[in-house]
Order: sequence, then C-alpha cells, then structure tokens
Amino acid sequence: MLILEAKRLGFEVAVLDPAKDCPCHSIADIHIVKGFKDESGFSELAKVSQVITYEFEHISAELLSMLEDKGHKIFPSVASLRTIQDKLWQKTALLGKNIAVPNFLAVENAKDIENYFNKKGTPLFLKSRRGGYDGKGNFFIKSASDIALGYEKLNGNENELMIEDAVNYEREVSVIATRAENGECEVYPIADNIHKDSILDTTFIPANISKSTEKKVMEIAKSVLECFNGVGTFCVELFIEKGTKRVLVNEVAPRVHNTGHYTIEACRTNQFENHIRAITGLGLGSAEMVVGASIMKNVIGGKGENGKAVFEGIEDAYKIKNVNAHIYGKTEVKEGRKMGHFTITAKTLSECVKILDKINIKAVKAK
Amino acid sequence: MLILEAKRLGFEVAVLDPAKDCPCHSIADIHIVKGFKDESGFSELAKVSQVITYEFEHISAELLSMLEDKGHKIFPSVASLRTIQDKLWQKTALLGKNIAVPNFLAVENAKDIENYFNKKGTPLFLKSRRGGYDGKGNFFIKSASDIALGYEKLNGNENELMIEDAVNYEREVSVIATRAENGECEVYPIADNIHKDSILDTTFIPANISKSTEKKVMEIAKSVLECFNGVGTFCVELFIEKGTKRVLVNEVAPRVHNTGHYTIEACRTNQFENHIRAITGLGLGSAEMVVGASIMKNVIGGKGENGKAVFEGIEDAYKIKNVNAHIYGKTEVKEGRKMGHFTITAKTLSECVKILDKINIKAVKAK
Repeated sequence: MLILEAKRLGFEVAVLDPAKDCPCHSIADIHIVKGFKDESGFSELAKVSQVITYEFEHISAELLSMLEDKGHKIFPSVASLRTIQDKLWQKTALLGKNIAVPNFLAVENAKDIENYFNKKGTPLFLKSRRGGYDGKGNFFIKSASDIALGYEKLNGNENELMIEDAVNYEREVSVIATRAENGECEVYPIADNIHKDSILDTTFIPANISKSTEKKVMEIAKSVLECFNGVGTFCVELFIEKGTKRVLVNEVAPRVHNTGHYTIEACRTNQFENHIRAITGLGLGSAEMVVGASIMKNVIGGKGENGKAVFEGIEDAYKIKNVNAHIYGKTEVKEGRKMGHFTITAKTLSECVKILDKINIKAVKAK
Repeated sequence: MLILEAKRLGFEVAVLDPAKDCPCHSIADIHIVKGFKDESGFSELAKVSQVITYEFEHISAELLSMLEDKGHKIFPSVASLRTIQDKLWQKTALLGKNIAVPNFLAVENAKDIENYFNKKGTPLFLKSRRGGYDGKGNFFIKSASDIALGYEKLNGNENELMIEDAVNYEREVSVIATRAENGECEVYPIADNIHKDSILDTTFIPANISKSTEKKVMEIAKSVLECFNGVGTFCVELFIEKGTKRVLVNEVAPRVHNTGHYTIEACRTNQFENHIRAITGLGLGSAEMVVGASIMKNVIGGKGENGKAVFEGIEDAYKIKNVNAHIYGKTEVKEGRKMGHFTITAKTLSECVKILDKINIKAVKAK
C-alpha cells in the first residue's frame, strides 16, 4: 500500500524482501531478494535509494544504523526506532515526557515478578521487551502460579522481560498520526478497535468516546510523535480505563498501521500517502475524514487454514455498495495471517454496521 | 491508474506497451514489449490473461476481434469499440436510440461540405471519422474558403471524413459511468470542463448546471452505455447549448477518462476500480461523491518544453492542504503531453477555486 501511493506521487521504489513472490514484488521498480539480517542487502538498497523507510518495526537497528552513519537518510530515524523497539525504553521515554502509560517494571528474574505481584495483587502482563506483535511475546499473569510458567514460556533466562499492569479498559483505541521533519503533524480520527485472539479484527471510526476524551487522545498522539522525534506515519494504541476514563498509551508503532487502513477510503490523504510525503520532505496532506463513518475489517486465515490461498464471499461483498476490498496478493494462507481487508464507508456508523452484517469474506486453503 | 486499482483488488496484471520504460512497466506483473499493431503481442497478452481491456480507443479492433473469436474475454467488447471508433457510426448509433447529437453528415468529397455549408451557413467541424484525439483530426470551418484547406489538411482523399455543426455551447460537461455485464450502471457526478487548445485543462465538480439539466445528462449517460452495450467505465462528453439548454452528446470514449480522474479522491469508488470490477464480473461500487466539491487540473508540457522531464511547483503545492498530486512517471516531457494532474477537494467549489489560485505545477525540460 505504501508502494501504490509512492507510485502515484511519481517516485521509483526499491524494496528489500527475502520472498521472491512477496506482494510488493510486481509493483516495485527494484526488488532486492535478500534476508532482513543480510548486510549486503541493506547496502544494495541504500545504494539505489534517496530515502529509506520500513513497514515493520522488528528490523535490524544495527544494520540501519550502519547506513545512517554513512549518511543515508532513514525515516523514522534509527534513534526513534531503537527506543520504540524496546518496550521498556519506549514506556520510559513516554513517562519522561509525562505521557501516561500503565505501571511497568523491568524484570531481572522471576523473583522480581513475584515481588511486584505480591505487592499489587492485580493481573499483570509479562512481556518480551523486543520482537512481540499480535499478542506474541506477551503472557497474562492472573495468579501467582502463572509466574513461573510465564517466565519459562517467554524464556526469561535469555530474553529481556518487563511487567506491566493489565489495564481494566473500557475500550482500546488507536490514532494514526503523520509528522514531518519540520514538526508539522497531521492527526487522523480515532479508531475503536476490536481484537480477537490478540489480532486486530475490526476498526470502527469515529470511536465511541466523548469529545473531551477525543481531544485528550489526539493531543497525546501529537506528544508521542514529538517524544520520539518521529518523521513519518506512526500509530499510537491507547486504553481508556474503565471508570476513571484515564487515557493510557499501550503501544507505539513507528510505521503505517493496520488500524489506519480505513484512511484510504475515508480520509482526504491516506496514512500511506502522508508517510511517503513526510519521508520525502513534501508537505503533509489533510488527515480530515471525508465520509461520515467507516468500518475496516481484516480478512484473516481461520483455524486450520494453511495452504494455497483462496477467497470466499468476495463476489457477494462486491454486490453491496459502499464496500471496498483489498486483497494483498499473498499466495499462501496461514492460520492468523492477514490476507486482506475491506472497508465500509457511509454517512453514519449504524449504516456501516448494517452493511458489515451482510459481509462474510474468508481466506481459506484451496481444496 | 488502472493497474494500481487492479493490484489493490488482488489481481495480477499483464500489459502490452511498446515502450520499455512506460509508466506501467514497474507496476505490472508482466510487460509485453511489442507494438500496438503486432499480432504476436496481442496473442501473448491473451495467453496470460483471463480478461482483456484497453485504456485508449485507437487500438486495433481487427487484432482484438481475432482474440475475441478465439474465445478470449474483451471488455468493452469489440462490437462496442468498432462502433465508437468511427465517429460517423458512433453518432448514427446514438441517433438511432433517440439520443440528441449535433447535426452531422458523412462526407464523400469536398463538394459535400460545400453543399452543406451553403445550405446551413453556420460554422462546422470537419472531422476525421477515426483516430482523432485532443482536437487532432478536427478542422473548424467558419467560412466557405476554409473548406478546401480543411479537406486538404485532414487528407480527405485518403481519410474518411464527416461534418458536424459547431454547437454554440454554454458549457462542455462530461459524465463518467460504469456498466456491468448484467446492466447494472453507476453514473458519476457531472464534470464541468475547460479545454485549452483542445486539450482538457481543468475539471470542476459539481458542474454549474440546473437540477433538471443534471438529471437529463445523467439519464443520457445511462442510455449511451446501453446503446453501445458497454461493459466497463465510459466517458460521455456533452454540450449544453446556449439559450436552448439542449443537451447534445459530443463524443463517447469507451474507457476511463481524464475528466474522471477526480473520482480517485472525491468518490466512494473511483472510475478505475469500477472499471476493473465491471470487466472482472464483480459488482460495482458506489459512484457517489464523498466530498462537497473537487477540481482536477492537468499538468501539461508547455510551449517548447521537449526533453527530459522535471517538475516545478510541486513542493509548494504540497504545502497546501487538500491537494493530491499524481505524477505519471513519464520520463520525457513534450509540448501538450499530459505529465500528471492534481486534485483539490473541499466542502465547496469556491474553497477549491481559492486553493487552485495558489497552485502552479509545471512540467518542463531539464536544464
């Protein structure tokens, strides 16, 4: 989706991806088929690029840093990336700027977890500081007996871990924001997110929150991007705490984000175009919503669906107006793999929900 | 732009284009580098394609017909294309369905023109029946002395010609419409067009016409697509006659059209996505406008600008919100060549016009 927008803007695009038939293969001008830890691939990419960006955060900061040291432009910067990659540093940086986050603590050994749990007595998340996504690398601790198991599961003797209070939240929201090098910042409308098995399932926009919470969340998003000196599109995921309505930052991603896919159809400038504009030094487009409401739903490989991918229900979905489907061109479906998404737009969210009820797109393995 | 939408929808795309570095080269899965009159290129394309379409109408109906005869799917059909390619047949077909067009007549020799002109005494257009675009192939006859010159210029001894009354129009409008095989039809909002030197310069949406004219124009658009049994996105250009407000069809294009580029930012489903959906048998998306108003302006190579292309004014344009630029990736600029376009969207047309006044994007030759 980044490449599609870059092409519209007139840029040529080179990509590094180890998979020969990856979705971007056919739309990039140059495809360097090398691994994400292969120094020579990074060097080749830098040689043909005027600016480098990435679309997932678990990329080698060491190799990127090598390029940055040689004078290559990388956005978001390696400094932003390094801080965000380590969830402990990320939360520490946010706290340093007085941005509210759930209580957290670095963990040296299982004893640290026990002490914290005994003192607080409330559910916790044990988290790998690096490399987690879609719930992977997190372990939920609701009783003292979970501690040893979690420590073992996340391989605490080898991996750096942290603990965090499990927030009793009313809803999970996220904000996409794009920031330019000169500090200009465009904040997108807030999305209300439903996760299933820790994977994003559906996003509703506008979020069902009060005007004052909305204002607070958008201000926090801006502060977060400033905190990391972010250049490009970022996503800030937040909890609205039950009862207190406190807004706590759950996680920051230094990249375009699944919860911002709705911006393609719903906003004046989508998150992908604005990312390209930010990293190439062009002014940002308006993040304003042009439709009344929108729902984005992921098409995810279901239980036991592993094999050559086939889609079901797409033709029926296209019979309904106000639906735009996006199929990523991944040849293999896997359980839990994001294979595509669709976006509904309409005047009101209740109209969108009515349309959503009629759609059932599935990615399954070919028979 | 068609390929970008096809990719989003999950399709693989093969293109036939004689230019190695054509804009679609890097985004198509397969690029067959052969001429538009090369039978082997057409056959190769058909071999790897489930459905074939075209984005300009001056394509060989003979070669396409050969493929259609072999059972390959082509949309719009060769029958639609053949009738539209010949302006005399096109107008005749429209008239046969009681769709109003300017008065016209087939021309066998210069004498026919003289007779018609003497009888009517009003300005005429002498037109090549085939192959014209952007005003090329048209000759304006305002006095009897222009007749011999026009006949010579358009090479009347070799080319088939026709004459048509020059309509004294209040405005030139166009409508994009997409029709599916089952007859389902989506009609886009009407665009008000300004041409310079017979090349489209700017499009304003909504068109400044009365509700009743709007209704009439949209009904005509639907009838035109039915008349040609059109499958895919078409453009119908019309004149609103001064005084009488009569609506006359000027020209039909069996393809996505420059006056529909605004639909990318302004409509729920753009003309390109709907074209792909129509030719692949998927249901059509809504053509409804999601913004209040829009202006599309072409970036055209200026006088004497021939050479390696460079753009000026883009960075300034990006500083203004509500502007989305599209750069086509053509390496060479030529006088009169369309190099890109930009779209402005806002709540009202007067807001759009204010923004337009601030933008000056140029495609010039590199110094």
